[in-house]
Amino acid sequence: MSVTSREIHLVRRPEGLPKLSDFQLVETSLPADLREGEVLIKQVYMSVDPAMRPRLSVGFELDQVLSGGAIGKVEASNSPDFAVGDVVHNQLGFREYAVADVASLRKVKPAADIPLSAYMSVMGGTGLTAYQGITDVAKVKEGEQVFVSAAAGAVGSIAAQIAKIKGCYVVGSAGSDEKVAWLTGELGLDGAFNYKAGPVNKQLRALTPKGLDAYFDNVGGEHLDAALAVMNVRGRVAACGMISGYNEHGARTTVHNLANIIYGRISILGFVVFDFMHKMSEFQGEMAGWIREGKVKYRETIHHGIEEAPAAMVGLMQGENTGKMLVAL
Amino acid sequence: MSVTSREIHLVRRPEGLPKLSDFQLVETSLPADLREGEVLIKQVYMSVDPAMRPRLSVGFELDQVLSGGAIGKVEASNSPDFAVGDVVHNQLGFREYAVADVASLRKVKPAADIPLSAYMSVMGGTGLTAYQGITDVAKVKEGEQVFVSAAAGAVGSIAAQIAKIKGCYVVGSAGSDEKVAWLTGELGLDGAFNYKAGPVNKQLRALTPKGLDAYFDNVGGEHLDAALAVMNVRGRVAACGMISGYNEHGARTTVHNLANIIYGRISILGFVVFDFMHKMSEFQGEMAGWIREGKVKYRETIHHGIEEAPAAMVGLMQGENTGKMLVAL
Repeated sequence: MSVTSREIHLVRRPEGLPKLSDFQLVETSLPADLREGEVLIKQVYMSVDPAMRPRLSVGFELDQVLSGGAIGKVEASNSPDFAVGDVVHNQLGFREYAVADVASLRKVKPAADIPLSAYMSVMGGTGLTAYQGITDVAKVKEGEQVFVSAAAGAVGSIAAQIAKIKGCYVVGSAGSDEKVAWLTGELGLDGAFNYKAGPVNKQLRALTPKGLDAYFDNVGGEHLDAALAVMNVRGRVAACGMISGYNEHGARTTVHNLANIIYGRISILGFVVFDFMHKMSEFQGEMAGWIREGKVKYRETIHHGIEEAPAAMVGLMQGENTGKMLVAL
Repeated sequence: MSVTSREIHLVRRPEGLPKLSDFQLVETSLPADLREGEVLIKQVYMSVDPAMRPRLSVGFELDQVLSGGAIGKVEASNSPDFAVGDVVHNQLGFREYAVADVASLRKVKPAADIPLSAYMSVMGGTGLTAYQGITDVAKVKEGEQVFVSAAAGAVGSIAAQIAKIKGCYVVGSAGSDEKVAWLTGELGLDGAFNYKAGPVNKQLRALTPKGLDAYFDNVGGEHLDAALAVMNVRGRVAACGMISGYNEHGARTTVHNLANIIYGRISILGFVVFDFMHKMSEFQGEMAGWIREGKVKYRETIHHGIEEAPAAMVGLMQGENTGKMLVAL
């Protein structure tokens, strides 16, 4: 048996915003036989993630398949631990089929009342990133003042809602009036602003009369400067992403207000979700409860078909998505 | 009885580097009688500190006496707790005499074999800043790779030596070849470079083949970018000062490599010594031992006479000092 699959290759390193022509759809053939400990996966959902952008410049190889988070179903198995039909999280996205060593897989057992796509967003690494950033990294406490940038994005929208659940005053930024309306409406944030409508520092200051105790940073640059300018003593910045620089050479982001951290005793703390994967099931239990109670709401922007994956990546970098950007296969 | 004193006023807010003409020597007369709980202090040593520079732009009032750390002797007392001749640390520097509420004073009991001036530098807040930054903030461990910027300065020279005592590989930067020679010679650092002789990032990279686990930052800007570029996973930046921006409007310092902290799980931690004053006597005990054993060496650059205080401040911002910059009265 041989399996024909289609996958997305990086054929040119983008300068500035990625373009469709930086990618190519390639047909490929998977090896006929599974070795011991291998399974064949048919991908169902693929994550399209801002953190992939720096790797398009440095990290991913040219003329090779991209990789990224995905959820798929086992189609054939040569492992006693994985059965046909098992749902597995893997890092072999941007292809329709993949052969994987089972050691690299995490089984996903979706709850009956939560759609599978949620396990690529709010119930997966995206949600865990938000959860750990707000709780373990920023360590927000009830009554604190919290700012989340890119708050209509996949991670930001969950982070902002978790801060609300923790009893904080929460302000978010987003890139359109529609997203801002979603943040202050359905998501119940205390304030939100469109960062394209005026200077970030003025808009943030107007919405944070009590300053900021914590900032969940997805953006860097002007957003981080604005947060540092209004940060209270012993404030914490959970540095999750700095998308403002991702389309610049070397993913550089320019910040001027760092000296504020000294007298403010402010901490800026980089973190990545991989350090917290052992907390996934504990997190999923809590998050499922919040979703059922209506305390956490989420949106997904879904493109359909592997051939749409480049458009999803290009659209992500232009802020086309609300919530998680996914490709359904 | 009335006391005539001379003091330094700020008469113009400096643009860029401070100039002598930004300051004025003013003769003044102190009140004749001490109220209950007050003492008259004759200052002996005054600290001239980089952290004063931002306050020349915002903080200090025009046409008023500056303030800063000083050590003086009690000349007259209206407090049962302070006797004539007591040595006291106070924040009423930049004047020859001061009347102080004893609640604002800290008694200094200099060891017989350590000069009083050391209590304004290595044995005082300067040394405690270095000590806490290396131990409590950067939390250096034996065998780690440590970088200290402005390592020939008051705080930096002590921080670098404490990191050596803790068993680290220590690299420092300074602004002249003479200072660099002092760092790798008398102070025993593993490497040092003149930041004026070439790009900081190239010079630092050449001296840190095992990367960096901790960076004691006195400078910000290009130095911080260079450190972030070679930082190891879970590296810590103890942010003590960002002198590179102090002569710019708003004390801004420009940094581009902040996105490195995310995948590096790097922490940037602002701190000020005022949070650690309760550890002063414990620290002084340890530091006195290191000085006696020859493990910590220190230098002071001393100007003489209150009228020289503006020159000391101007010289400090131009890197004229090695070790602590003091004015002796």
